[in-house]
Amino acid sequence: MKVAFQGERGAYSEAAVLEHFGAETETMPCESFDAVFAAVEAARADLGLVPVENSIGGSIHRNYDLLMQHPLSIVSEYHLRVRHCLIAHPGAQLSEIRKAMSHPQGLAQCERYLKAHGIQPEVAYDTAGSVKLLKTMPNREVAAIASRRAAEVYGMHILAEGIEDDAANYTRFLAIARQPITPTGAAKTSIVFTLNNVPGALFKALSVFALRDLDLTKIESRPLVGQVWNYLFYVDFAGSLADETTRRALDHLGEYATMLRILGSYPRHQM
Amino acid sequence: MKVAFQGERGAYSEAAVLEHFGAETETMPCESFDAVFAAVEAARADLGLVPVENSIGGSIHRNYDLLMQHPLSIVSEYHLRVRHCLIAHPGAQLSEIRKAMSHPQGLAQCERYLKAHGIQPEVAYDTAGSVKLLKTMPNREVAAIASRRAAEVYGMHILAEGIEDDAANYTRFLAIARQPITPTGAAKTSIVFTLNNVPGALFKALSVFALRDLDLTKIESRPLVGQVWNYLFYVDFAGSLADETTRRALDHLGEYATMLRILGSYPRHQM
Repeated sequence: MKVAFQGERGAYSEAAVLEHFGAETETMPCESFDAVFAAVEAARADLGLVPVENSIGGSIHRNYDLLMQHPLSIVSEYHLRVRHCLIAHPGAQLSEIRKAMSHPQGLAQCERYLKAHGIQPEVAYDTAGSVKLLKTMPNREVAAIASRRAAEVYGMHILAEGIEDDAANYTRFLAIARQPITPTGAAKTSIVFTLNNVPGALFKALSVFALRDLDLTKIESRPLVGQVWNYLFYVDFAGSLADETTRRALDHLGEYATMLRILGSYPRHQM
Repeated sequence: MKVAFQGERGAYSEAAVLEHFGAETETMPCESFDAVFAAVEAARADLGLVPVENSIGGSIHRNYDLLMQHPLSIVSEYHLRVRHCLIAHPGAQLSEIRKAMSHPQGLAQCERYLKAHGIQPEVAYDTAGSVKLLKTMPNREVAAIASRRAAEVYGMHILAEGIEDDAANYTRFLAIARQPITPTGAAKTSIVFTLNNVPGALFKALSVFALRDLDLTKIESRPLVGQVWNYLFYVDFAGSLADETTRRALDHLGEYATMLRILGSYPRHQM
């Protein structure tokens, strides 16, 4: 099985692919999220795995936009615990390190650790890319902040693991495929919809789940730019399209929604 | 009036301060969002202005966390249209430019423009910082991507304006102060709450607004890490604490909510 992800080899997205689908999975690095979706659509990859929300950063709207633009379905989800590593040349000691390269977000998430060790942050294009760059530099005083996987890919040494200031750092990934699935067992269904701009519209829309005791696991409104009072709604709820109740709820929602797109049903992954 | 913002002089946040509060406002650059909140709390600044969501990126959970941690109130909102500029040394021509520095997000948002003009992206810590750095370099082949304000602050030249691939690029900012206000006229109120984990809990919670014809302008669930089925909810609705209806709705919500925090009522700003 070949799974496309965004980033360099060793990226957190690649780590998520290997944890989620197994260490034997063939991974396919892509330059952009667009390229991941295009690779799956053109069958150059069997699946794609893209991040949609982080516990500190929030949702990544771009990937919801791409889900809307491509005829692909969500077939699974995975919560990756983001554990940043301080990575250096083999043999280098923590006390020697003067500078650490990473993506600005990686540097920001390890701010306290870097300050405590007197290490100067230096910005790089991405986390794994900074390890790739480190490999080409002879300087033992320089380190990179990235995933354990990145250290393994580039044959570098982990000086410290879990150096992020906030341990509750999770990223939720969605796997996308050309064919939808209808899972049995504990499942979620993800949808996107718009509503007529009338008072109580959202309340009516949510009644289709409440009346059927279907639990919501995510709800998010997204303002449509230039259209005051008009929103897209992202909703995930516990249930599969294999269930009659789920199908009835969505049928009922179709009565209120001005647009309704089912992004997929997939097995639930506990965080 | 002194307003704290996160970033270097010339940052988009500083541009938002000047557009929102007027060109005569005294701006106070801070290293981090934490520092903005601390400056307002300690009365070193009258107000702070922080981004909470972007139309492409999504919500910035970090600033909601800080709103919860500090005894400050939201007193206004502002939607900034993010217009990226290609900035170079005075006298440089667009045809000479080979490289453009910016924050990875700024580079990503101008990807098509850079490709079309054969300009190589180069990562920097932030947008305004890349203009500051550009000023110290003698090289006319290098440009930076940042706000119009950054070009003005550092006396550099704008070669092109509005070079972002997606023109619907807005960031919503919230102004925070030590004292809450109770606005009259078109207003919003922002709240955060948690609910008991029972079926239909969110539906009941939203009924307190629907039953009173109070329109929601934002709703977002945020999973509490390590607590399956437990969420924080962020809700903005049309109404002010000056209105009896709003106070009754919040009183009613208090019957269901296991935690309820009112972040503030403030005049509404149309996007």
